[in-house]
Amino acid sequence: MDSNVILYLLIIYFSVANIDAASKKNAFVGFANKFDHKKTFNRSTSSLSNSISRDECNLPDELTEEISRYKPIVEGIINASVNGIFKKRTWRTLARFVDKFGSRIAGSDNLENSIDYMVDLLKKNQLENVHTEPALVPKWVRGRESCWLVSPRLEKLSILGLGSSIGTPAKGITAHAVVVESFEELQKLGKVVEGKIVVFNEPFISYEKTVKYRGYGAIEAAKLGAVATLIRSVTPFSIDSPHTGWQHYQENVTQIPTAAISIEMAETLQRMYQAGDDILIYLYMEARNLPPVMSRNTVGEITGHQHPEKVVVVSGHLDSWDVGQGAMDDGGGAFISWNALALLKVLGLRPRRTLRSILWTAEEEGLVGAAAYFHDHRNNTAAFDFVMESDEGTFQPLGLSFSGSSEAGCILKEILKLMHPLNATQFASPMDGGPDIEFFTNIGIPGAALLNANERYFWYHHSNGDRMTVEDPTNLDMCTALWAASAFVVADLSIDMPR
Amino acid sequence: MDSNVILYLLIIYFSVANIDAASKKNAFVGFANKFDHKKTFNRSTSSLSNSISRDECNLPDELTEEISRYKPIVEGIINASVNGIFKKRTWRTLARFVDKFGSRIAGSDNLENSIDYMVDLLKKNQLENVHTEPALVPKWVRGRESCWLVSPRLEKLSILGLGSSIGTPAKGITAHAVVVESFEELQKLGKVVEGKIVVFNEPFISYEKTVKYRGYGAIEAAKLGAVATLIRSVTPFSIDSPHTGWQHYQENVTQIPTAAISIEMAETLQRMYQAGDDILIYLYMEARNLPPVMSRNTVGEITGHQHPEKVVVVSGHLDSWDVGQGAMDDGGGAFISWNALALLKVLGLRPRRTLRSILWTAEEEGLVGAAAYFHDHRNNTAAFDFVMESDEGTFQPLGLSFSGSSEAGCILKEILKLMHPLNATQFASPMDGGPDIEFFTNIGIPGAALLNANERYFWYHHSNGDRMTVEDPTNLDMCTALWAASAFVVADLSIDMPR
Ligand SMILES: [Zn+2]
Ligand SMILES: [Zn+2]
Repeated sequence: MDSNVILYLLIIYFSVANIDAASKKNAFVGFANKFDHKKTFNRSTSSLSNSISRDECNLPDELTEEISRYKPIVEGIINASVNGIFKKRTWRTLARFVDKFGSRIAGSDNLENSIDYMVDLLKKNQLENVHTEPALVPKWVRGRESCWLVSPRLEKLSILGLGSSIGTPAKGITAHAVVVESFEELQKLGKVVEGKIVVFNEPFISYEKTVKYRGYGAIEAAKLGAVATLIRSVTPFSIDSPHTGWQHYQENVTQIPTAAISIEMAETLQRMYQAGDDILIYLYMEARNLPPVMSRNTVGEITGHQHPEKVVVVSGHLDSWDVGQGAMDDGGGAFISWNALALLKVLGLRPRRTLRSILWTAEEEGLVGAAAYFHDHRNNTAAFDFVMESDEGTFQPLGLSFSGSSEAGCILKEILKLMHPLNATQFASPMDGGPDIEFFTNIGIPGAALLNANERYFWYHHSNGDRMTVEDPTNLDMCTALWAASAFVVADLSIDMPR
Repeated sequence: MDSNVILYLLIIYFSVANIDAASKKNAFVGFANKFDHKKTFNRSTSSLSNSISRDECNLPDELTEEISRYKPIVEGIINASVNGIFKKRTWRTLARFVDKFGSRIAGSDNLENSIDYMVDLLKKNQLENVHTEPALVPKWVRGRESCWLVSPRLEKLSILGLGSSIGTPAKGITAHAVVVESFEELQKLGKVVEGKIVVFNEPFISYEKTVKYRGYGAIEAAKLGAVATLIRSVTPFSIDSPHTGWQHYQENVTQIPTAAISIEMAETLQRMYQAGDDILIYLYMEARNLPPVMSRNTVGEITGHQHPEKVVVVSGHLDSWDVGQGAMDDGGGAFISWNALALLKVLGLRPRRTLRSILWTAEEEGLVGAAAYFHDHRNNTAAFDFVMESDEGTFQPLGLSFSGSSEAGCILKEILKLMHPLNATQFASPMDGGPDIEFFTNIGIPGAALLNANERYFWYHHSNGDRMTVEDPTNLDMCTALWAASAFVVADLSIDMPR
């Protein structure tokens, strides 16, 4: 195939020469156009939908063939990312970013400075239409915090106040503790809870099933008159490491301070409680909620050459918790999203539709940036062909998890077959790990999240351990490759993704 | 076999009735005597040694047979520990101990109070000749400590000052940092190091190979004029978790403060250094070395019925670092060592030789308790038939690692075959994980350390993560069983362990 040969020659040229990427940005211009998709497949999505059942795919031969013809392009993208000019680039750029800014909580100067930096970086990398879009975001400030077991013996506890928690009075709170494993146990204690610090030592089942204790523990304890809560961190593994995260208050229920403690200390307190020890705890937190401030979602594009008004989104969130470096949650997701476009740009791969990289703000406070973005684009949702997000780690990529019509799913499955060189051909549904794009998928726009070998994701999540050490250069190259290749093929297909 | 039947009946009785163990302490008295070892094997060790080559064992049939006849006893011990009256007892007693006292550093009231507690506990469990033996131990006190990256941006570092380190001046030390990966790199920097804080970001190879940077980093840096050192924690895994440990100063080399930092931060600092960032660090440590104080090794026995003067030792150290709970290092080793004897006592299994449980003090400061003990018993080393220690975790037991003559090794291999019900029949040599007993094995006394599935041992070692959560009740039961059974058989054999 002559297009194959041309691509490989060019890839070898790039890999060997290691030239300044930007200066060659037009080398591949029009390359994708060599495929004459229309000749081989050109029918409406409505006729397509009839030929596909939920559990099996019967894509028209022409479409299967069209997709298969992206093989050399996909291989070229993979090769450039894993072995060529982009080798280790996602890791290197991410390391420099998180080392420079550290953690980036919503409302902080750190986050806003890091957004400015990204705007510059995206422009330097020749992304198009680089700009930001505003979002009003919460500003929660941790301040100093400490917690001591006072009785039966003195020991300092590792804690992290939970996002949106109020602080304690200036002298702290000193109170006896009760320890429960569940809301049911809490209810049974009833009046005993009054004036106490409630310690939740809920077992970790899964993040989804267990996170309610972090989210609503303070409400339930306050209803019974508790003065504070300490929540066992929502993680399956710990080295005395507390994990923060957002928590909720409820109207007409007293707001009480709440913090995460480690698995180890939650278990210790429970053993002490069951042994009948008199547990006295001192908690000090300066945490406070300040008025909301303006932040920004960061956007960069490769404009489509045929349907610039139609958009395929690749995204991750730039904000993080105020601990660690936010390298995994979600530096990795954000950096494969813009590097995917930077890579395609260097390779001169401009698809029919527009590729848009969005770096969300204030995800951690409840998808705040994405909500603002969706609101601002609510009258133009028809433009969104496909939405992608990576927010559950950028470990070894395995494939994509999907949300949308079975027709779109079948197309994605077919595209994933091209990811064989990455060993990342898995297709899963429902979608898992794309919180911000759910505004879009919830109204039927097809979308996908990165499937990756993230068994240890929650070991680091929202903790001081979310640092660059978690990220692996080759895994990041492979994630960028999968991200760039799958987004490009979707954006370049002769048909829109069927809703 | 009638002894088999008797034992099982009694074990069933104990398991079902769950009676007060102490009240039945004499139920099995004399049971072990039913084996007439002398009838079947009675020759000198010198003739034995001729029949064994280093790599293969040719034990006399009579000895093999004698050992095999311990099968029902071993099975009884295992059953009682894993399923019977001792089920979860090691875990439960250890949890109560570490929850009550927390960490137990040499020189602390915590350690001395915990020794008093153990003396009581051993007496309550009817161990014999319960007493302590004195040892003069170092008293290093951590005090408060903190460390901040000041430039290129402000971030608090997780640190743990290293044992024996001096503190900083009251105002702390603020200095620029250099980052090296090895002593060789440090040497190359030469004069550049003067007035700087040296950060060691040495890669983790193995504990044995890497620990020299913790042990001697301050000396080597001080020789070149450094004002402090920060050492990457000696561990293969981290959730921003620093690991402390003992370090050394050298005569005529300036003493400088030294602390451990996390893997993550060591890597971050190195990336910053390589990027040319101006790294400024503030270090504050109140650490100080106080005059040595008296501590104690704790001893309890089951006196041998035939050779009370001959001793088989099972041991672990009671002291720990001043972080975490010292549950793994070495609460587990200490608690399987005394529970092994408590179990044998309850089962009425009194061997020919004396079984001695020793809970060492001040292991962490350089085997200080064991050194004192060895010194005090130096004129009676002939009495020590076999020495055992567990100090590299009490995860799932796999067998024993051995030091001593090939003849003794062959006997131990044969005994380990009896541990089949535990799936813990592995024999390894050289011995690994018995630091305190090396005083004995170094002069040719045979000994063994616990082999266990301790792949994650150094994840927690000397960190705040060394807590009860690391320990598993069933694993501890199995370790206690292996410990009790192998020590009993060695102590009851018709022949001494050949040197
Ligand atoms: Zn996230
Ligand atoms: Zn130890």
